[in-house]
Amino acid sequence: MRLLLISNSTMQGEPYLDYPKYEIQKFLGDKAVTALFIPYAAVTFSFDLYESKVEERFAEIGHHITSIHHFSDPVEAVQNAEAIVVGGGNTWQLVRMMHDNQLMKAIRLKVEQGTPYIGWSAGSNVACPTLQTTNDMPVVDPKGFDCMGLVPFQINPHYLDANPAGHGGETREQRIEEFLEVNPEITVVGMREGTMLKCENNSLKMIGSRSTRIFKKGTHPEELNASDNFDFLLKS
Amino acid sequence: MRLLLISNSTMQGEPYLDYPKYEIQKFLGDKAVTALFIPYAAVTFSFDLYESKVEERFAEIGHHITSIHHFSDPVEAVQNAEAIVVGGGNTWQLVRMMHDNQLMKAIRLKVEQGTPYIGWSAGSNVACPTLQTTNDMPVVDPKGFDCMGLVPFQINPHYLDANPAGHGGETREQRIEEFLEVNPEITVVGMREGTMLKCENNSLKMIGSRSTRIFKKGTHPEELNASDNFDFLLKS
Repeated sequence: MRLLLISNSTMQGEPYLDYPKYEIQKFLGDKAVTALFIPYAAVTFSFDLYESKVEERFAEIGHHITSIHHFSDPVEAVQNAEAIVVGGGNTWQLVRMMHDNQLMKAIRLKVEQGTPYIGWSAGSNVACPTLQTTNDMPVVDPKGFDCMGLVPFQINPHYLDANPAGHGGETREQRIEEFLEVNPEITVVGMREGTMLKCENNSLKMIGSRSTRIFKKGTHPEELNASDNFDFLLKS
Repeated sequence: MRLLLISNSTMQGEPYLDYPKYEIQKFLGDKAVTALFIPYAAVTFSFDLYESKVEERFAEIGHHITSIHHFSDPVEAVQNAEAIVVGGGNTWQLVRMMHDNQLMKAIRLKVEQGTPYIGWSAGSNVACPTLQTTNDMPVVDPKGFDCMGLVPFQINPHYLDANPAGHGGETREQRIEEFLEVNPEITVVGMREGTMLKCENNSLKMIGSRSTRIFKKGTHPEELNASDNFDFLLKS
């Protein structure tokens, strides 16, 4: 499988999807690709607008996207895709629409056959076994928490170390500890802003200048850097 | 109905449940009450420990609690309660255990008959029609998003204005806008840390020195203070 799982689309003050664009370019290769784009995580803006924002960045790096909402048969669109790109937004709506359109299985089968998969934020969440490490507000019932399971671990995108000033609720780390208490067999990868996981040739690498925080039940969380080996996560 | 719905248990640097204790005392009255405590939102610590933390504060103000986990029949414990207190933690586990123990209906009926209800954080969320404005991580499937609907609006506890520094995800306000996009008929009350809503004699008041942010679909969010009238929320 070939996966590029990105924590967040955009760094503060930068244009949309700017920082990961060269990694996306490298991942898709020299030959121009028109990827199938899944815009379902957009709630407060239109799929057309989302498509145009993403297309602008892809065109800049010599590739293109077409959004799935233009196809009458979404499953067939997946089956014919050169590459699949799933954008961020609200994970709950994304999962609901992927379930409603039978895309969980369709995309999983297609990506298992070698089609490149790129996701950011909610699009990285749905590559995991379930949506249970999302940070998003459950604005719709997703009709099932299960996702694609392209990787056997859970990603927490936008991983934050500290609570915002004056916030009296649980920290992100405490929330992940709650997840591990209930789901002790699954590893959680806290991906800080500006980081990506790339899976190619049965090997997993991390890209980014910040470290990634690995949470396993019963052990102290571990910090791993881009120079570390992440392959153990594929066997977890 | 008599409700005291609190945003957060504790202000940073203070003892657990310290800041709202005198409001709790006033709400429960001069005669010593032993309230039924629902500790189900605790995930990483025991119900016994949770009970002892809350009992310590209640004893300080001349009241007491007994946790529901000591009763063999939780519904009967609710039916016999002098007051009901639902603590914070993880909303998803709280909702799941309330569903599993048939408590949503039991508590609603009991509170509709006049039994005082106190909740904080997750305990305020479950007083709303659904859990859909929680900030918590969905560590378990709640087996249904519906909650008690003691009030006809949604509370977002721990309401935060700004994103933490360097966070590239959606702000809280953007998440609530997503909720309103999908659920346009429901008002959302963003409760900042240190604030409470008190419902008595069919009237709703806000307590706290910070303002509360009211979100309705199609209008600019409104800031209301403790001196403002909140009754309109009961009719929404």
